[in-house]
Amino acid sequence: MNYYKDVIKAMKKLQTGGKTLFLAQDQGLEHGPEDLPGETLNPDYVFNIAEKGEFDGFICQKGLAEKYGSSYKVNKIIKLNGKSLLGPKDDPYSPVLCSVRKAVDLDAKAVGFTFFPGSKYQYKIAEDFRKIQEEAHDFGLPVTCWLYPRGKAIKNDLDPKVLSYSARIGLEIGADILKMKYNGNPKDMQYQVKCGGKAKMLMAGGPKAKSSKDFLKQVEEVNRAGAQGFAIGRNIWKHEQPIAMSKAIRDIQVRGKDRYSALKRFDKD
Amino acid sequence: MNYYKDVIKAMKKLQTGGKTLFLAQDQGLEHGPEDLPGETLNPDYVFNIAEKGEFDGFICQKGLAEKYGSSYKVNKIIKLNGKSLLGPKDDPYSPVLCSVRKAVDLDAKAVGFTFFPGSKYQYKIAEDFRKIQEEAHDFGLPVTCWLYPRGKAIKNDLDPKVLSYSARIGLEIGADILKMKYNGNPKDMQYQVKCGGKAKMLMAGGPKAKSSKDFLKQVEEVNRAGAQGFAIGRNIWKHEQPIAMSKAIRDIQVRGKDRYSALKRFDKD
Amino acid sequence: MNYYKDVIKAMKKLQTGGKTLFLAQDQGLEHGPEDLPGETLNPDYVFNIAEKGEFDGFICQKGLAEKYGSSYKVNKIIKLNGKSLLGPKDDPYSPVLCSVRKAVDLDAKAVGFTFFPGSKYQYKIAEDFRKIQEEAHDFGLPVTCWLYPRGKAIKNDLDPKVLSYSARIGLEIGADILKMKYNGNPKDMQYQVKCGGKAKMLMAGGPKAKSSKDFLKQVEEVNRAGAQGFAIGRNIWKHEQPIAMSKAIRDIQVRGKDRYSALKRFDKD
Amino acid sequence: MNYYKDVIKAMKKLQTGGKTLFLAQDQGLEHGPEDLPGETLNPDYVFNIAEKGEFDGFICQKGLAEKYGSSYKVNKIIKLNGKSLLGPKDDPYSPVLCSVRKAVDLDAKAVGFTFFPGSKYQYKIAEDFRKIQEEAHDFGLPVTCWLYPRGKAIKNDLDPKVLSYSARIGLEIGADILKMKYNGNPKDMQYQVKCGGKAKMLMAGGPKAKSSKDFLKQVEEVNRAGAQGFAIGRNIWKHEQPIAMSKAIRDIQVRGKDRYSALKRFDKD
Amino acid sequence: MNYYKDVIKAMKKLQTGGKTLFLAQDQGLEHGPEDLPGETLNPDYVFNIAEKGEFDGFICQKGLAEKYGSSYKVNKIIKLNGKSLLGPKDDPYSPVLCSVRKAVDLDAKAVGFTFFPGSKYQYKIAEDFRKIQEEAHDFGLPVTCWLYPRGKAIKNDLDPKVLSYSARIGLEIGADILKMKYNGNPKDMQYQVKCGGKAKMLMAGGPKAKSSKDFLKQVEEVNRAGAQGFAIGRNIWKHEQPIAMSKAIRDIQVRGKDRYSALKRFDKD
Repeated sequence: MNYYKDVIKAMKKLQTGGKTLFLAQDQGLEHGPEDLPGETLNPDYVFNIAEKGEFDGFICQKGLAEKYGSSYKVNKIIKLNGKSLLGPKDDPYSPVLCSVRKAVDLDAKAVGFTFFPGSKYQYKIAEDFRKIQEEAHDFGLPVTCWLYPRGKAIKNDLDPKVLSYSARIGLEIGADILKMKYNGNPKDMQYQVKCGGKAKMLMAGGPKAKSSKDFLKQVEEVNRAGAQGFAIGRNIWKHEQPIAMSKAIRDIQVRGKDRYSALKRFDKD
Repeated sequence: MNYYKDVIKAMKKLQTGGKTLFLAQDQGLEHGPEDLPGETLNPDYVFNIAEKGEFDGFICQKGLAEKYGSSYKVNKIIKLNGKSLLGPKDDPYSPVLCSVRKAVDLDAKAVGFTFFPGSKYQYKIAEDFRKIQEEAHDFGLPVTCWLYPRGKAIKNDLDPKVLSYSARIGLEIGADILKMKYNGNPKDMQYQVKCGGKAKMLMAGGPKAKSSKDFLKQVEEVNRAGAQGFAIGRNIWKHEQPIAMSKAIRDIQVRGKDRYSALKRFDKD
Repeated sequence: MNYYKDVIKAMKKLQTGGKTLFLAQDQGLEHGPEDLPGETLNPDYVFNIAEKGEFDGFICQKGLAEKYGSSYKVNKIIKLNGKSLLGPKDDPYSPVLCSVRKAVDLDAKAVGFTFFPGSKYQYKIAEDFRKIQEEAHDFGLPVTCWLYPRGKAIKNDLDPKVLSYSARIGLEIGADILKMKYNGNPKDMQYQVKCGGKAKMLMAGGPKAKSSKDFLKQVEEVNRAGAQGFAIGRNIWKHEQPIAMSKAIRDIQVRGKDRYSALKRFDKD
Repeated sequence: MNYYKDVIKAMKKLQTGGKTLFLAQDQGLEHGPEDLPGETLNPDYVFNIAEKGEFDGFICQKGLAEKYGSSYKVNKIIKLNGKSLLGPKDDPYSPVLCSVRKAVDLDAKAVGFTFFPGSKYQYKIAEDFRKIQEEAHDFGLPVTCWLYPRGKAIKNDLDPKVLSYSARIGLEIGADILKMKYNGNPKDMQYQVKCGGKAKMLMAGGPKAKSSKDFLKQVEEVNRAGAQGFAIGRNIWKHEQPIAMSKAIRDIQVRGKDRYSALKRFDKD
Repeated sequence: MNYYKDVIKAMKKLQTGGKTLFLAQDQGLEHGPEDLPGETLNPDYVFNIAEKGEFDGFICQKGLAEKYGSSYKVNKIIKLNGKSLLGPKDDPYSPVLCSVRKAVDLDAKAVGFTFFPGSKYQYKIAEDFRKIQEEAHDFGLPVTCWLYPRGKAIKNDLDPKVLSYSARIGLEIGADILKMKYNGNPKDMQYQVKCGGKAKMLMAGGPKAKSSKDFLKQVEEVNRAGAQGFAIGRNIWKHEQPIAMSKAIRDIQVRGKDRYSALKRFDKD
């Protein structure tokens, strides 16, 4: 059991005031450069935001960590699997692209893994996850698990039953941090958080929101629902004032402000 | 052969008066939070029952053991494979979710594995089982095997022929403890126990019974049929008086009482 | 090459007067308890026959060897693969259920493996066999290979062409002992033995014969055809006088008697 | 992170004036001897060009490196996977034909791997790549990745969206050098280079161009678009003056000349 | 690179006057005992020919090498994969039946492997080959590769394009010796030899020729076409005077005689 104490310690280093905010960019792989307009295509631009903003860590693939990561002071969370949009339409599976050992070499403070509950590849996904979870824990590294219910068997991936079941799966299989979608209903998120138990819930940022206000409303609701925090990509690095956005989120998350007050960040910065 | 002496010793530590009673909760993964109403969703609630009730051990997945297990004094049996209801309909297969090595790290006193006789994935299941059984025995850990005949080839999973064949399979492949359904016919259970030979038979609790009396009737019949004991989940932790239920079962199982006498537990507690 | 000398030595310990007689019981797994009437369901009953009869070894699965084997003085041959009748109809494949290493732990004097020439799973079977054959030889253990031609591509598994080809396959892939069916034609068995070359031919006992006389007739024919011996299950442990049957077979096999003389065993015992 | 410094150092040894030019011949395997007319069928002929021309390295399969490579002074880049045209039509997959360890034994200065974005075998390809990339980096060897989008899901492998996405995939998964096709549009190449980020872009030479002028026009355009260099086969070793061609490319690439000036090489040599 | 020097040395020990003649018998496995008439069924008969004839080595499966090989003084080449004719019709695949390590234990001087260019199992074949080629070279053992183009995608396995492509594949993947069919056209063989480069070409003997003269005509043509030698089975051990046949081949191959002169061997012996 001692190994788990190291994981708990490592988890605390990924928190500010007991809460967590991660910046993430794996869209280059997952969606392609079309989703990385202008300077966001340049990993240096995004790493710079990660360093300057108020983040507990930055999530990216091995390639970015290897080629850009050593120049920036920010906790790195290496995403260990992933996939592109090229290739035939099918139930989703993300092959493992980085070993735990390499993530350790790259000084990762946690690892990330996408699990697709409901995919017809769920058995292979579960195998991959087991190996990674156990090896990561051997190194005292927390495991962040994207729980995205998908595949032909999933009719609605925002159905609260599907979301809460997925959260519980994350807890049962030994994820330490759950990264999941928010379906817009605060009560569902509250239950989702509860189903995750001691596995910490992070809201996935999702596509760019219409406005900062809209996005911060979600942040406020999810924070109030008891989530541990946020893992956000496009709503930060696609934002005109990404550093300000990180501060605005923190205002709500750890400084007890409401979204209207947090919105003032965009005037100040 | 010496290694097997350690297994026998370890088996004895999972007995009270020569009989075995396990509490189990893997429904969070297998059925989803819908099957965990109210406070039963909280692993602390269930671990607390496991500690306070009269149990020889508590069966759960790695995730619960890691995050909650170290706070409770109870023998832990880690379930090494499992599956969720999400995903396409198919013959059943439960991927391995925890290694024997990790179960040892978590101070498990035995391991659990679900085997589906009749599934079209039976070859893969047999492979998984072999590796786990042998590694567990290397560590001196007993192997509890859920023997649930299922898949398109199984017309009736309560057919005594299918049940007795499954019990014998458990014995032949080297399971130490068999967890199986009771089809309601005491004679069938008697034969089932015999087919298991020196592999010890535990009745699986199944869905919540209509009444405590109904459930204790099964306990009485199965105990009289020569079973080693019970591995029960919902009929205990979904019960209003779970501790009392554990004592009532023990009254029948090891204190020679009948079900009517055992029912009095619910007045006392 | 030295390793093979150990195999040859080990082979000699499985012979009496240059001939071999094995008792076998894997029907619990292969056919289910329906094929184990009365006391034959109890492994102790069968192990007792193995110890008291005139046998060079007893063949069983790991589960029986672990739980019953240490109490009986008889050479144990552990069957390393096997399958049940439950599950979908398909070409046959027997998953590996015991490693060579575990067989060594269990003090096995040889290992057994079922190979299905003609099965669509023949590639996987050949892979499994290679690993087991080589590891067994590393430990100096002889490998007994069941050669049962089966699958949709095999129209008649008693066709002498199919049987003789299967025997030669056994020799080419490195089996030390071949366990095969006798098709009732002594000339075919003679050729089958020749095709096996220095790999020793054992006749598989098959289903219970109508009478002891009928069965001993086969024994006499096969022995005369040059076979190394017999690996028999049901015709011994389903027999009313199993010890006498073992002696009767030995009368023919090593004491130069004919079947009529051997039949007298059943009056004496 | 230290391991990556070795990779960067090794990368520099594969550059001349900050730019890279590789000779390549894997067409014997990929297209068959029909694509190797006259003396180009003889590996000595091609190795000789590699040694005498102005190249930073020569790319070939293990077989050529083993049997011919030790006689020639040229940096060797071993291609680790590959396939032939024989066999059924299908989405492409190139099995691994050489381990990283063997490439190291053969004194390789980098390794090569073909990745087919869009192939239905993309998961297996990604697995193979991960293992090779990580082991190569353990040895401090740069990884050159052929990124050839192909398979039924790819309608046009020269579509700039597909090419730029493929380049980004190369960066994300940890390739150090990208070998990709040029679709003839300099702006697309410019974006492609940008998408590759710090992973260095090499143009694949493709089929023999109509004239030296036509080919050098491509070289000029791609060089101007910011590519790191070229990995060229047929346009060099099928050329009548292969050494002159290598010098002509270098004239444009590192000596600041235009294609008209470079063309003069063919009169001089 | 040093490891390859050992392979070259080992190659020379398999030559007489710079040429190679192997006896082969794997037809027991590949075709069944029907192809082994009379005494040729007895491995001792064939091993004896291998010892007494003028051969550089004898090719057989592990089973024969283990059980008969130690009694005969002849270089042994162990065939590492193989298959039988039993089983469903399909594109060909030969599972690995012997590890390189076991071949080394059996004192093999080289190993053999059948590769089927064009088979739909080509990826698996390539994987198997890679592992075997690399491990064999680690031990300094040459790798003989049967290159038999087959499968639905191959319309004519004697098409010179297919044969020459297959020879080049052998060279590229690192085979040291190529065993291939002769299509009867000396010019095609000449090109085939050239495509194999420094990988040495052996003609496969094929089915029993009508007469010794017919067979020696092939030998003469192939030898003149520049092949390294021959790997022959049925045309030797099915011949009435197998030793004489080995000498007749050598007369042509290394003693500069023509087929008419070589035919005189059959009068002398």
